[in-house]
Amino acid sequence: MRIALCGGTGDIGAGLALRFARDTDHEVLIGSRDPERARTKADEYGAELSNRGVETTIKGFENAMAADRADVVVLAVPPYHIRDTVESIADRLDPSTTLVSPAVGMERDEAGLHYNRPSAGSVTAMVAETAPDDVPVVGAFHSLSAGKLADLERDLEEDTLLVGDDEDALDVVRQLAGEIEGLRALSVGPLANAPEVESLTPLLINLATHTDLHDVGVRFE
Amino acid sequence: MRIALCGGTGDIGAGLALRFARDTDHEVLIGSRDPERARTKADEYGAELSNRGVETTIKGFENAMAADRADVVVLAVPPYHIRDTVESIADRLDPSTTLVSPAVGMERDEAGLHYNRPSAGSVTAMVAETAPDDVPVVGAFHSLSAGKLADLERDLEEDTLLVGDDEDALDVVRQLAGEIEGLRALSVGPLANAPEVESLTPLLINLATHTDLHDVGVRFE
Repeated sequence: MRIALCGGTGDIGAGLALRFARDTDHEVLIGSRDPERARTKADEYGAELSNRGVETTIKGFENAMAADRADVVVLAVPPYHIRDTVESIADRLDPSTTLVSPAVGMERDEAGLHYNRPSAGSVTAMVAETAPDDVPVVGAFHSLSAGKLADLERDLEEDTLLVGDDEDALDVVRQLAGEIEGLRALSVGPLANAPEVESLTPLLINLATHTDLHDVGVRFE
Repeated sequence: MRIALCGGTGDIGAGLALRFARDTDHEVLIGSRDPERARTKADEYGAELSNRGVETTIKGFENAMAADRADVVVLAVPPYHIRDTVESIADRLDPSTTLVSPAVGMERDEAGLHYNRPSAGSVTAMVAETAPDDVPVVGAFHSLSAGKLADLERDLEEDTLLVGDDEDALDVVRQLAGEIEGLRALSVGPLANAPEVESLTPLLINLATHTDLHDVGVRFE
């Protein structure tokens, strides 16, 4: 399978790229608005994995090129770049592509971080609104700490929650996520259940602020 | 310490009563609008614990009587009864009482359950708005499954999240919650962080609906 990480030069993209490349046999493509930056980052990730004895062929492209012919496209961009990014890759997507949304809108006040619910209902719903109608969208990977993900010394041992309206696409992402060592993917139902999933991210950050749990993840038992 | 469970005849009240009475040395009072019902339930809980070799003196009272002179008052009532309940006990509360709010407002659509945020910002904030200004309020116990809590055969092994603006009151509830076997209490900061804590409850119910995890709890690691 071919996985494109649009915005794969950022924190969460780096972590997913390293884990997918290390733990799965899938081809990993790094996307960025700037193809040169994508190539530089792809080389960095490849070098880090090579230092660990893992030989991979991570390549960098402009976002639309990375998304082209990818089976799974992860939108590893901040929520305010979601619409632009989806529009910029839209003509490379087709019904066989699964679009994955890990982004969460948050705002800060003096107490901490809060879920900033977009008018679409959730960031995942915003992706579905913006993408071509026949392209399935799955929300996933929201609660993973970018820092923990990118530090290959650290074991994950945590869960990620999935939402989506297309069962086949959910199956694809559930299986793919489960291939990352220590990660368990659990479905929470239709895309309309995304707000409560996305709300977990500011909660985890507030928890890290007020306890000695850092880069905290979640387990459901 | 004396713990009053207003609405302690309901599901979550039953679970907390049984666990507090079994696992701590504190005095447990069951409150209800109907004192006769409170006494009946208190006797039931006492009998269940007695069958397990735990001798306790759980007593039942009308809510205001239960709250009177209690150190901790847990509002184990549905969110639409919160204001009435707080008003009915208000003149029994003083600054040395800690008011604990476990309730969550939820609404159902065809996808599942959703967090129904009250205009006050959260149910916990609604409690703080309604209670006398000098009575400290702590949000806690939101994510505990009533069914699991009331089944003393089952180990909890889960976390509960606390929010509140009064550090002393937070300490009281953190210690009290931690006395329940298998429960760890973690502070997530000020009361303004309650919405993300309360949003976890519909998420857990959606998760139980869509996976084989029943009465699911949460662990942060």
